[in-house]
Order: sequence, then structure tokens, then C-alpha cells
Amino acid sequence: MRKLIFVYALFIACFVFYLATSLRESPSDSGLNLGLQGSMEEKYVMVTFQAGIDYWKGCLKGFEDAAESLNVSVAYRGSTRYDLQEQITVLEQVIAKRPAGIAISAMNPDELTSTINKAIEAGIPIVLFDSGVMNSKAYSLLATNNYEAGAAAAHKMASMTGGHGQIGIITLPYQLNHQERTEGFKATIAQQYPGMEVVDVRNGKGDQVVSRQEALSLLETYPGLSGIFNTDAIGGIGVGEAALRKERQGGLKIVAFDTDKGTLDMIQNGVIQATVAQGTWNMGYWSLQFLFHLHHGLTGSGYSKASSSYPLPVYVDTGITMVTRENVSDYIAK
Amino acid sequence: MRKLIFVYALFIACFVFYLATSLRESPSDSGLNLGLQGSMEEKYVMVTFQAGIDYWKGCLKGFEDAAESLNVSVAYRGSTRYDLQEQITVLEQVIAKRPAGIAISAMNPDELTSTINKAIEAGIPIVLFDSGVMNSKAYSLLATNNYEAGAAAAHKMASMTGGHGQIGIITLPYQLNHQERTEGFKATIAQQYPGMEVVDVRNGKGDQVVSRQEALSLLETYPGLSGIFNTDAIGGIGVGEAALRKERQGGLKIVAFDTDKGTLDMIQNGVIQATVAQGTWNMGYWSLQFLFHLHHGLTGSGYSKASSSYPLPVYVDTGITMVTRENVSDYIAK
Repeated sequence: MRKLIFVYALFIACFVFYLATSLRESPSDSGLNLGLQGSMEEKYVMVTFQAGIDYWKGCLKGFEDAAESLNVSVAYRGSTRYDLQEQITVLEQVIAKRPAGIAISAMNPDELTSTINKAIEAGIPIVLFDSGVMNSKAYSLLATNNYEAGAAAAHKMASMTGGHGQIGIITLPYQLNHQERTEGFKATIAQQYPGMEVVDVRNGKGDQVVSRQEALSLLETYPGLSGIFNTDAIGGIGVGEAALRKERQGGLKIVAFDTDKGTLDMIQNGVIQATVAQGTWNMGYWSLQFLFHLHHGLTGSGYSKASSSYPLPVYVDTGITMVTRENVSDYIAK
Repeated sequence: MRKLIFVYALFIACFVFYLATSLRESPSDSGLNLGLQGSMEEKYVMVTFQAGIDYWKGCLKGFEDAAESLNVSVAYRGSTRYDLQEQITVLEQVIAKRPAGIAISAMNPDELTSTINKAIEAGIPIVLFDSGVMNSKAYSLLATNNYEAGAAAAHKMASMTGGHGQIGIITLPYQLNHQERTEGFKATIAQQYPGMEVVDVRNGKGDQVVSRQEALSLLETYPGLSGIFNTDAIGGIGVGEAALRKERQGGLKIVAFDTDKGTLDMIQNGVIQATVAQGTWNMGYWSLQFLFHLHHGLTGSGYSKASSSYPLPVYVDTGITMVTRENVSDYIAK
């Protein structure tokens, strides 16, 4: 008899436990709000190119942090090399597994359009981050405003040179984001700093050795050169090496781009004065948020039933930070 | 004896219920993830001007939808009139209550800066939506790219006129967002549609009667006028009235702005052919998301401890939708 009642009690206990936990699973019935969250079966994928380079680490960290907040899974894929065909192959493999969403940084603004559009037509949400794609159906682009980043570099250069002197630029003249950085820099100097002049623009080919040679050549052609703005992530280190070789370190003001370890070391040593850090964490974090909202139909059209209104912000300027000796330790610690 | 065991069973049941529900309350201990959510004590405030007009409804709906998802409270405040001093007073009253965050659409790009900066220095997160403020410390601006909106209006006008003819513009020539819409329109016509010409730009003063008079005057000066682009929310209705009075409805192509009821009615009747709907829901929704992330320290610096990196995207282009007879019902149904 006692045993039977004990079993009975246990049965009640299990039933109550079931009731209590089921509250958690059906928030709409119980009136409980569980916030924004998905399930671990939902997998979102980030696709890059040259997947091993430092630059993507911040993007992936933001992507992962958002996934943790939203209780979903992420994966990271990309071409190992700077190879368009390889990136397309990787993207096609990712699409074939029908993930909950894909965030892509496109190596080329034209060649990925059809692959992306096919995936979107098949119902897979896609956003672009860092580097966009022309005429694609991707829902949003989350990236640096490169013109404004160039303008910010110009203001920094002006404050360091006292607004006077000759300035050189080393860039990748055939790549859109670098053209924009160069234009923003040149226009800002021309319009706001009459004591300064951009005397030369060279092609550093995104290569440390080529950029060093171009910087050396600039320093020989313009012996009184006040500063060099280098628009890519690698060339700034070469420019720093040129300043060292010519014993102009500290005197020649250098503004670099991105936060590669070599660049940060040279900022600590005073060879490079500043570098433009992009909002990589923001790119990854808000890419995942956007994909999550698309996957769950939590966009304007989903909420408001106005099916024709645009579901997401079309462009997000993820912002920049000017890294100097004062705050460089924040970036090295990461 | 039986009763005692029943009480005992009830006691076990209550304890198990407590255990099961407490799992829900301490996700970090139990390993459960509760997603992004706040508490109903957290109040976020939206502040506008001319608070009663239709335009803000979509913004507020987005703000409220995000609050529901995140389980937080919202309030709506604003000056009743188009009165800068009144908006400043309302904003100061809101700040005095120290809410969890404030989203402001600023009536004037200069005069609200110091009030906003003081609140941010006091630790209250602020973002701007719809209309920005120069040199403020607000974390982000979520708004239409007005230049691009003007360009989109130009493409629409060109497709309706077959890329030929004289076009007039009615605008507010002294207000920045209207200047940008006008510039985007004019530049697109000049660069891409050699068969079209913007022959006149008039000041409609954001007023239905003034805009009607200016439209009538345009139709008298240029009897063969092919189209009018009206850049504000109210004037388009006056332009429609002018087309009706001159019996040019349908023949004169009109592109208006925003989705006031009068404009939507004229689209249904075929008097106005298209209007540019702004991404108001996105402005409100992502404003609240950003404020929530600031309040909870869920930004790049909060997650990654890189305290100097910029916490949020600096600018969000909330997108536009071209509303025509085909999709106007989506906007009326709201």
C-alpha cells in the first residue's frame, strides 16, 4: 500500500515536472516571453576568401557572439587562397547543405552574383559583409564606408603633420574599396587642408615588398615627404620598413589600414603612427542577427504583413576606429 | 495516514515544480540559453516632433515589435507641433527619468546636440533615426539614404516617361534631406537619361496649397511637362490636385514621397503614379535593438573587451520601397 502511494507520488511529481518544463517550451500559451532565440539545429555559415588571414578573426568573433546570444550554431568556410573559382565552389557546397543563412564576403563584385541569386531564390537568406556584390539579391551589405575611412585617415594625417607638407599614397588602384579610400583621402586634403598636397599615388599591389620599394622610391623622389597613407592591410608594414631604412621613422608620418600583427607592432615601436581599424566584429555580429531575423520571418513584412516593404536595412556602415599608440594594446590583447 | 502521504506527495510535487521552473530562471547555471531578452522594468523611449502625424506610425510599430521580442517596455513622446523648443523640453523630461535608452528623430541638425551629448555623458544610450544631428555623440543614425531615394525616383520617372521630356521638382530647398533627394534625382537624370531634362525646381514649403499652386504654375510655364517629382510627404497631394484641375491626371507622371493616406488614395485613383516609402519599421525596430545592446553591454567592446573599438554600426540605411498601384494595398491595409 505504502509503496503504491509512493509510486503514485512519483507519478504526480513527473507530471508536474513535465507541466513546469513545458511552460518553457510554449511561451505563447503561458504568456512567458523567451526573448529572441533559435535552436542549435539552426546552422548559419560565414564564407570568406583567404580564410586563414587575421582580418576575418574579428568578423567571425562577432558572428559567434551573436550565435551564442541567440542560441544557434555557426560554421566558418572559405577558399584557402585568393582564388575566385575556389570561393564559388565553397559557396556552392555550403548552399547544397541548405543552412539557415549565409554571410559572404565576396572576392569579386561581379562573379558571385548568379550563385548568390540562385540560393536566395531557393529560400536561403544571404547577406554580404565586408565586400559587396553588384546587382545581387542579397538582403543587405554590412561594410566599412571606404570613402569616409579615407577621409578619416586624411584628418589624422593633417593633425600629425600640422596641416602642412607633401603626402604620398600607396594603394591598389584597380580595386573598388581602395579607390574609394584614396578618393576620400584626396578629396579631404584638397578641400580642407590647403597647406597639404597629395603629390603621388603608387601601386603597392597589396604586397609588402612592392610597397616597400614604392615607399623608398617616393622618399627618393620627394626627400621632404611628410607622410604616406597606405590603403591596404599588408603594404603599411613595407612602408614602415622603408621609413626605417631611410632613418625617417617617426619623422615620416604613416597611416596604415587594418590591424595585422606587423602593423600593430610598428605602432607600438612608433614607426607607424596610426592605422584604420574596421568594424569587423560589427560586420559579423549584425550579419548573424540579420540572417536570424530573415530565417524566422522577424522582419518588417513578417511583423506587419506589408509584404512589399523592404525586409532589412539595405546597407550598414559598420564604422571605423583610429588605432594609435594610445589604444593599440586593446587590439593586441584580442 | 493516507492524507499524510497525499500531503507528502503534494510537497514533492511543489518542490519539483520549483526545481523545474528555476531552471528557467538561471540559464547560466543550468546550461539553458534564454536568448536575447530584457525585463519589463527596462523602458526605452522614442522621441519625435509633430508626434501625431502618420509618418511615425511605422517607426513606432517597429520599436514596439522589437520590444515585444526582447521583452522590454517602450514609451512614445514628442512635441505636438513643429516646434524645436518644445522638442528640447520633451527630450529633457524624458532624460530626467533615466530610461534604458532613447531613440530620437531630431527636428533640427544643430540645436539638439548639447542635450543629447549631456544624456550620453550621463550614461543613457541614445540613437538617432530618420533625421540626424551634426557632431552629436549619439551612437548611430538609422535613416533613409536620401540621395539614393532621389535617384530611385529618377529611375521610376524615366521608366514611366520612356526616358523623354521635361521634368519639374517641388521640394523644400532649405532642408538637408530634401536637398539630397533633389540632388540624387537631378544627378541621375543628367547622367543616365539624356532625353530628359529637369527644367525647374520650386519651393512647395511642405504645404499642400503652396505645392498645388507651384504645380499649376509649372504646368502653365511648361505646357508639355512630362512629370513632377515632389520630395515631401504633403506636397504630392497638391501636385495631384493640380494635375486634376488641368485635366492632366495620368498624362503628367507624378512621383511623390512617403505614404500619407491622401497620397495612397491618389495612387489607387491613378492620379499619382508612385511614391517613395521609407523603411520606417526598420528605423524603429533596429533602433530598439541597438539601444538594447548598448544598455546590456552586448556590443563589440562588451563582448571582446577591446574597449576602444566602435560599439555599433555608425549608420544604417533603412532602405526604401517604390509604392505603385500594384502594391499600394499593402500600405493601406496597415
